[in-house]
Amino acid sequence: MNELTLPYHHLRTFAFEIFRKIDCPEADAQLASAVLLSADLRGIDSHGLARLSGYVRLWEAKRINSQPDIRVVHETPSTAVVDGDGGLGLVVAPKAMEIAMEKASQVGTGWVAVKNSNHFGIAGYHAMMALEKNMIGMAMTNASPLVAPTFSVERLLGTNPICVAIPAGRQPAFVADFATTTAANGKLEILQRKNEEAPEGWIQKKDGSISTNPYELKEGGALIPLGSDREHGSHKGFCLGAWVDIFSAVLSGANYGPWVPPFVSFLSPPADPVGAGIGHFFGALRVDAFRPVSEFKNHMDTWIGRFRSAKTVEGEQRVIIPGDPEREAETERMVSGIPLNDKVVEDLIALGEKLNVKF
Amino acid sequence: MNELTLPYHHLRTFAFEIFRKIDCPEADAQLASAVLLSADLRGIDSHGLARLSGYVRLWEAKRINSQPDIRVVHETPSTAVVDGDGGLGLVVAPKAMEIAMEKASQVGTGWVAVKNSNHFGIAGYHAMMALEKNMIGMAMTNASPLVAPTFSVERLLGTNPICVAIPAGRQPAFVADFATTTAANGKLEILQRKNEEAPEGWIQKKDGSISTNPYELKEGGALIPLGSDREHGSHKGFCLGAWVDIFSAVLSGANYGPWVPPFVSFLSPPADPVGAGIGHFFGALRVDAFRPVSEFKNHMDTWIGRFRSAKTVEGEQRVIIPGDPEREAETERMVSGIPLNDKVVEDLIALGEKLNVKF
Repeated sequence: MNELTLPYHHLRTFAFEIFRKIDCPEADAQLASAVLLSADLRGIDSHGLARLSGYVRLWEAKRINSQPDIRVVHETPSTAVVDGDGGLGLVVAPKAMEIAMEKASQVGTGWVAVKNSNHFGIAGYHAMMALEKNMIGMAMTNASPLVAPTFSVERLLGTNPICVAIPAGRQPAFVADFATTTAANGKLEILQRKNEEAPEGWIQKKDGSISTNPYELKEGGALIPLGSDREHGSHKGFCLGAWVDIFSAVLSGANYGPWVPPFVSFLSPPADPVGAGIGHFFGALRVDAFRPVSEFKNHMDTWIGRFRSAKTVEGEQRVIIPGDPEREAETERMVSGIPLNDKVVEDLIALGEKLNVKF
Repeated sequence: MNELTLPYHHLRTFAFEIFRKIDCPEADAQLASAVLLSADLRGIDSHGLARLSGYVRLWEAKRINSQPDIRVVHETPSTAVVDGDGGLGLVVAPKAMEIAMEKASQVGTGWVAVKNSNHFGIAGYHAMMALEKNMIGMAMTNASPLVAPTFSVERLLGTNPICVAIPAGRQPAFVADFATTTAANGKLEILQRKNEEAPEGWIQKKDGSISTNPYELKEGGALIPLGSDREHGSHKGFCLGAWVDIFSAVLSGANYGPWVPPFVSFLSPPADPVGAGIGHFFGALRVDAFRPVSEFKNHMDTWIGRFRSAKTVEGEQRVIIPGDPEREAETERMVSGIPLNDKVVEDLIALGEKLNVKF
């Protein structure tokens, strides 16, 4: 597998110009390209440029509105429901998170459920917006149904990620950003490229039996909730994915469960929708709504320091604090550039040619 | 293993009288016995009467204050920090949840972090308080360190449960209540009684290697975060347990990580505490702060109905909706009585004799 490594700013400008070509206003194109590229920077390659042509195809299919009227349709002092008007999740999500933070600045916390949106990139971007304001940020979203609940052979949930971002002092922030499945779809794509089998416990066949075939989803198989099987707690992973689905979509009025529209444009959304678009849920908690910021940050430093220096099993260097790998990738890639695999490069070149943007 | 089955009200009265004997005010003893017995009713036997003598021993060791002055020490319209004054978690927790619900009734949501508390029974009791008010309830708590983060040999986290309780209409409520480990401690106790080995992935030895010995914790081993190993996402289970720890204790000013005082009275709390007692975190979200209650409940019914009727793998009757097993146990045990194993019966008889309460 060959890779091409290109500078962050070069790639971000390319994404910006593509978003402009699909009629995004300039500020939205800036925002969308920043959110999209944050995935590539942070090493979550499946959620960055690899998806750019997918967004464009959804726009071509008139399933993404590049000039949405994003608005609050219901609110209380600490909550809001936002209608994303079919916009790019990359734009709708950070705007919804801003509303959550504004509410938190007024009454201590803010909680925003979003309907009528689309894929929002990495949850981490949105949750981390809270950090510089000395707030804790949370972000979750539902997604296309690829996951079978425990004992089910039907795909009823998405990989439904959760991010919780918590500020610290001298230590870097705690940022847990994870799919509620044993493995996210992106991990299967890596195996496909390497021509390797998946470990047992990641995927099941159409009939629910064990599979190690990384192409199993194409055969009607399913991803498995975190826990892998009932004996190892997959019902808990199902609880997590269900929680995300309900907060993101039943609270907001979006589609949930098997009704969530697919990301890929060649599959049609269900003909009998139960809501509008896909759903997200955001939270912002002002640290000083609980205790003084400096006190909190000192204790976060103690917490992180203690866990990071824990005695490890033989052969492992350290306990990894949530957010460490992504932050390290970001530092490295901001300097050395972002590696793109050949398939993504081909895809971006074709996209650039189609829309007359130089890659 | 023999069992004795006794009526709920008989056992609840016994617990009430025991709490009175350790000087709990009458209303607190009523509340504590209701919370404690809700575990036995709902089939979570490890968190009910099996722990009653443990609470008494903590009171004898002056580590539980049976007449606490539970008070709000900091607040905003949507948040509060509660000092439990060393009280029984069984009493402090529902009072903190009441505060969260009162805030939600005012500004849409309420979020309460608690310090200086003790073990609070099952998370489900507290979260479910929200249901009858058409609110979503959340409850989490940290606990004695028995869990090794991924790659660690040190026990730094508790089994740190999360409960999310969501009201529905014709369907029973969605109630996800789960430890953030692959298996909770109570599951090991069941294996010990049955003289059986544990599956791989539940526990590790002192050096971090695989163990199937259900007594491994006594040898310095540890429970494992949900996911079982890195390849199957144990770092995500670690994220969950860490999140609960930080929300419960770093936000509130309680002890966190390895500093959490042990539940058992024969182990002393750490000599260098970083906070006060153990910590909890509660949330209440008014459904109509997001959308009309009837609309929400109709969609919850659709959600639950769709998942419950999913096509199953061969040999399984149905997909289990979070809360089903506990609700079914409660219905059954309220009628047929609560089965207690011999060890618990012996323990309760001895406790009754010591405190002069007839069992």
